Amino acid sequence: MLKPITRREFVASTLSTAAIASVAGGKGALAGSASSARSASSAVSASSGASQAAAIPFVAQPSWKDQGVLNLAHSPHAKLHNVPVRAVTIENGFWGARREVNTTQSIPTMHDQLESHGRMDNFRRLVGKSSAPQIGGPGCDSHLYKWIEAVAFTLQSGDRPELHKTAEDAIDLVIAAQKPNGYLNAYWVGERAPFSMTPEAQQSGHELYCLGHLLQAAIAYYRATGDRKALDAGIRMVNDFVLPTYGPAPKLPIISGHPEIEMSLIELYRITGDKRHLDLAGYILAGDDRIHVPLQASIYLFSGTPFTERTQVEGHAVRALYACCGAADYYLETGDATYWRTLNTLWDGMVSTKMYVTGGVGSRAQGESFGAAYDLPNVSAYAETCGAISSMMWSWRMLAATGDAKFADEIERALYNGVNSGMSLSGTLYCYTNPLAFDPSAGITIRNPWYTTPCCPPNFERTIASLPGYFYSTSSDGLYLHLYDNSTLNWHLEDGTALKVTQKTNMPWDGDVEITVAPAQPSQFTFYLRIPGWAGDNASVTVNGKPVTGAVAGAYLPIHRRWSAGDVIQLRLAMTPQVLSANRQVADDLGRVAVQRGPIVYCLEQLDQPGEVHLTDLSAAVSMKPGAEFTSEFKKEFLGGIVVLHRDGVVAEEPSLAGSPNSKAGPGALYGPYQDHADARYSRSVRLTFIPYYAWANREASPMEVWTPISKV
Amino acid sequence: MLKPITRREFVASTLSTAAIASVAGGKGALAGSASSARSASSAVSASSGASQAAAIPFVAQPSWKDQGVLNLAHSPHAKLHNVPVRAVTIENGFWGARREVNTTQSIPTMHDQLESHGRMDNFRRLVGKSSAPQIGGPGCDSHLYKWIEAVAFTLQSGDRPELHKTAEDAIDLVIAAQKPNGYLNAYWVGERAPFSMTPEAQQSGHELYCLGHLLQAAIAYYRATGDRKALDAGIRMVNDFVLPTYGPAPKLPIISGHPEIEMSLIELYRITGDKRHLDLAGYILAGDDRIHVPLQASIYLFSGTPFTERTQVEGHAVRALYACCGAADYYLETGDATYWRTLNTLWDGMVSTKMYVTGGVGSRAQGESFGAAYDLPNVSAYAETCGAISSMMWSWRMLAATGDAKFADEIERALYNGVNSGMSLSGTLYCYTNPLAFDPSAGITIRNPWYTTPCCPPNFERTIASLPGYFYSTSSDGLYLHLYDNSTLNWHLEDGTALKVTQKTNMPWDGDVEITVAPAQPSQFTFYLRIPGWAGDNASVTVNGKPVTGAVAGAYLPIHRRWSAGDVIQLRLAMTPQVLSANRQVADDLGRVAVQRGPIVYCLEQLDQPGEVHLTDLSAAVSMKPGAEFTSEFKKEFLGGIVVLHRDGVVAEEPSLAGSPNSKAGPGALYGPYQDHADARYSRSVRLTFIPYYAWANREASPMEVWTPISKV
Repeated sequence: MLKPITRREFVASTLSTAAIASVAGGKGALAGSASSARSASSAVSASSGASQAAAIPFVAQPSWKDQGVLNLAHSPHAKLHNVPVRAVTIENGFWGARREVNTTQSIPTMHDQLESHGRMDNFRRLVGKSSAPQIGGPGCDSHLYKWIEAVAFTLQSGDRPELHKTAEDAIDLVIAAQKPNGYLNAYWVGERAPFSMTPEAQQSGHELYCLGHLLQAAIAYYRATGDRKALDAGIRMVNDFVLPTYGPAPKLPIISGHPEIEMSLIELYRITGDKRHLDLAGYILAGDDRIHVPLQASIYLFSGTPFTERTQVEGHAVRALYACCGAADYYLETGDATYWRTLNTLWDGMVSTKMYVTGGVGSRAQGESFGAAYDLPNVSAYAETCGAISSMMWSWRMLAATGDAKFADEIERALYNGVNSGMSLSGTLYCYTNPLAFDPSAGITIRNPWYTTPCCPPNFERTIASLPGYFYSTSSDGLYLHLYDNSTLNWHLEDGTALKVTQKTNMPWDGDVEITVAPAQPSQFTFYLRIPGWAGDNASVTVNGKPVTGAVAGAYLPIHRRWSAGDVIQLRLAMTPQVLSANRQVADDLGRVAVQRGPIVYCLEQLDQPGEVHLTDLSAAVSMKPGAEFTSEFKKEFLGGIVVLHRDGVVAEEPSLAGSPNSKAGPGALYGPYQDHADARYSRSVRLTFIPYYAWANREASPMEVWTPISKV
Repeated sequence: MLKPITRREFVASTLSTAAIASVAGGKGALAGSASSARSASSAVSASSGASQAAAIPFVAQPSWKDQGVLNLAHSPHAKLHNVPVRAVTIENGFWGARREVNTTQSIPTMHDQLESHGRMDNFRRLVGKSSAPQIGGPGCDSHLYKWIEAVAFTLQSGDRPELHKTAEDAIDLVIAAQKPNGYLNAYWVGERAPFSMTPEAQQSGHELYCLGHLLQAAIAYYRATGDRKALDAGIRMVNDFVLPTYGPAPKLPIISGHPEIEMSLIELYRITGDKRHLDLAGYILAGDDRIHVPLQASIYLFSGTPFTERTQVEGHAVRALYACCGAADYYLETGDATYWRTLNTLWDGMVSTKMYVTGGVGSRAQGESFGAAYDLPNVSAYAETCGAISSMMWSWRMLAATGDAKFADEIERALYNGVNSGMSLSGTLYCYTNPLAFDPSAGITIRNPWYTTPCCPPNFERTIASLPGYFYSTSSDGLYLHLYDNSTLNWHLEDGTALKVTQKTNMPWDGDVEITVAPAQPSQFTFYLRIPGWAGDNASVTVNGKPVTGAVAGAYLPIHRRWSAGDVIQLRLAMTPQVLSANRQVADDLGRVAVQRGPIVYCLEQLDQPGEVHLTDLSAAVSMKPGAEFTSEFKKEFLGGIVVLHRDGVVAEEPSLAGSPNSKAGPGALYGPYQDHADARYSRSVRLTFIPYYAWANREASPMEVWTPISKV
């Protein structure tokens, strides 16, 4: 489909009279914003890791130890600033348990999977240490990089020597394969090398995509250890290989192909201060019309045309949302109003027309793509784990730009549901797709230890490893609390006042949170307490026992006062199970409801229902008669410890179209005279049992559904 | 995806020690069944057309003039037998008008389209009369053949000299390109010739598919004119090219690829009596495991594995249903019980789980395929016109085997709706897909004069041209009446008694039908009167004014008596508009209804609704409150003359999820607290106007929907 031109042809056609300008080499340090820098440490490598050939100058403020998931300390258009992962300790509780599994099961076993599937040998081969053939498609390096990043984030919460060593070894393997010109990729070598970075290869070859993941892994590792070696390798590929040759005319053009490089270059810029890194990201986001991309390809790739001309998220979901992450990062640095308008249009369109109630995105398997507005089928939902993760990453950037709690609501929705479903309770099996209804008779195994394209598993692992970094932000006037779980923040306000905040809670199973606020000295600031969108009108907040008014669901409650050690905020959120409808334009959810309690979306698994309930023929319905209620039951030993919900339901004894006068209508007929399905002849009451969606498919394969038909009898 | 082996490799691997048996040449005449043959004419060419090289012996009983759409006169397992197309004259009325458009607009303009798109030049080129390049894909000959067949059926209703001449010219063009060895195809020539009939080419090359359509066209032309020249060309390709070389080992294997050849060979057998033609069809239906087809390909192609091992219609819809036609024909000739079981399993599964209310089949664009059971989306419905046609063709064969009215009901459903929608009222624009909901803002033009693969337009044309042949059948004990419209049958009972039957009616707009039965002499027989499935309990029948009891919807009413000229059957069917529900397992139709009146399925087009109705946001609903009723209005000048239906509806003033406490929920929110959509806050009553589905998209592009949400207020 793509116009076939070789690089040589391209060069001949565009550059014959123009010399490629040599702009290699450092260009200058960051013109940092004047925001109050907390640390003046110049951040040369401070850890034990050797910093090889550390001649690349960069300005890192704050120090590597003090940088968050994003380092927004100098980003002029960030209202909120990240706190370091290491500043937040997540203790025993919901996420503590998931993170322990992540660290002790997922990450180590994924290392072995990567090894046994040749991902390390791909690099060993390049330095003569393996004769195994290259394995995996053009993006295969990235899976190893994401795994390194997962380890790196884990190390930011405290050293794990054994994991540390495996990551160190992997980094050494990777770096050893870097070519003298900075190029580093284990796929576009050998007989494929001549096609490297051709316009065609850029569209599907994942070279810059892999570079992006290398940079993210290297940055996370640097922030974990202060070790620059991976980071320097990444910088060398950017500075020595990419920048001198690729970019605006007269250099060779770039198309992102699979966006990822954009956000990575900007995060790199936040370390190096080298404005070329920011500018290159901006150039890529703007597209270069020297590489002509047909309309359909431009939609699928979500690149190649100006980001600011986009009007909706469309095409390959992860491509689109990684591009949105990069564009949001670009806005945070530049304040470009056109980007900001576009980002808001796309984000609003996504959450109001193209997102599952689980936070899953990308409804279509074909092209792993967004469907049209309201095209959100349940059984065939693709909802790749990477999609929900990239949505969360994008909302995190939008939240930083605004402090608007609507972005935090969608982070939470994705995190607890469509992201969290992506890994089994055991930690060793992963969902690639996260459908909202399932019939095992189709023969699909939903959780697997490995995929041919194993993008989701390490993406999940790096996200969970980085989770402490999502709990709080600072602003010029105080502190924002985004996520609730047992945890301790040890950090400081932006005026330098040291601050400790502890949360004690049984969230998400219980709605009470006790928050202890302890500044080093009494201090006037605003504590922004997030009241989740699902909280309704019943959120109550006290400080030291005295009620605080103004709590509104879906907003931060600003508590401005002089805080001193021993102050206690008590937050109480009603955990009443909610029955949700979808917008009527979602064809697949009409006449159905979903159940949510707190941030947790629930589902039915047939395993938990009485024998007469068969989910696949939709003969079971949730009772909506007046007075029908849920009961909640915490079951400690069940599915890792969950609140189970029960509610009356009904089962149709007779098929819905029985007695139709249409020819041969009757049991099982496809069409017949109007029947109100909500009032259809349900003859048997049953007790339905709902479990959290994220916990589905952790037992024997069983039919599942999130959106259940309703009955009013 | 398919294992690449060349024919040479194949021959080398399978035939190296085996000579290809020479079985060319005639093998014997038909062992015809003992049914009463009405005509003993041996049917050598009786028309003006030259019968070149007419050395191919065949037994045609009855004569070409007396053969129906299918010639089942000698089929041992046919309970019903076709009457010739020419025996039924469809007069002014519903189908009369459509057929007039078909003859005067569609067929002539399609001729010009085929010419201007190179379909004739493809053949001229082969005899040096054109230097234009070959145009169209591997199946492109078939479009011309189907057009010839459409003309041929038209001529069976009376000569149209101008059309006759164009078809004659086209046939001459085609025949001139036949190779000495009998091979005839305008695509697999020149540089493609070496790949002709390789196992790979058979899977996607449409060579036997085109042969099948050539045979069907030739048979229809023969039955129209007695002219054997096209038929002899087809027979030569079968007898001289296919039979000597391809078939069971040690010959080269066959895979159907795109089924069509099966039913064509059997219809040929019904003329030639050459059992090799039947046996070859049986061999193809059984599959030949020397051509290994991966599972997914076998599903898509619906061939290559034994037909009798199929358990559901699946894969490419037209492939599947053409295969079912061939299998049904095979059963009609052989009575093979395994085929019969399979056919019934597949048919029941299709109509109870995989068919739109319009009779459309093949819900998925991807692979033009059947979806899973109940996977019947409306907006994205593919429902190719050829799918509905092939479903009708299959049901016609099942009806012949049984006389069971359930098959006639589905013929009628498809014919009036999902087939009839396939051509514009003007006769010059065609639907390829027939969705059940439509939003023109997606930029799709639904009716077009031409398609790159123009399979549907001539398929529609041949079907409408052959329609008289579907009105009646004979059986050993009498006459079956299947379809109601103004018409005259001039034929005879199977005992030879001449019989004239006239229908006077305004069907489908009015439910009264006056049927005059006039045997040449008073005669004892059964008149089987079809009571449609949609008729409900109110069908009334009189003979000469006296009530006949026993009319049951969805069954034939057998009226056994001594009939004599002047007898009048009066049938009265209630035409009350019906509100239909789908089986609740159809996710896309839950909470919605469709409207049907008589055999006609209705739809809403936004053009006809008050300004506040916007179908695309589903804010308009049909009122289901007690007492809500339809009014019917015949509008003679509107859309060709139709009954329009009106009914109260409501429009939601506020979006469905307004006032949600969820974060930022409100107008346009995707999810929010449960609302009963059927009772949602509809504030404005509107009068909705329904038009027949087949008549949609005949004005300016407008949103359309068949399944409309309901309200109970």
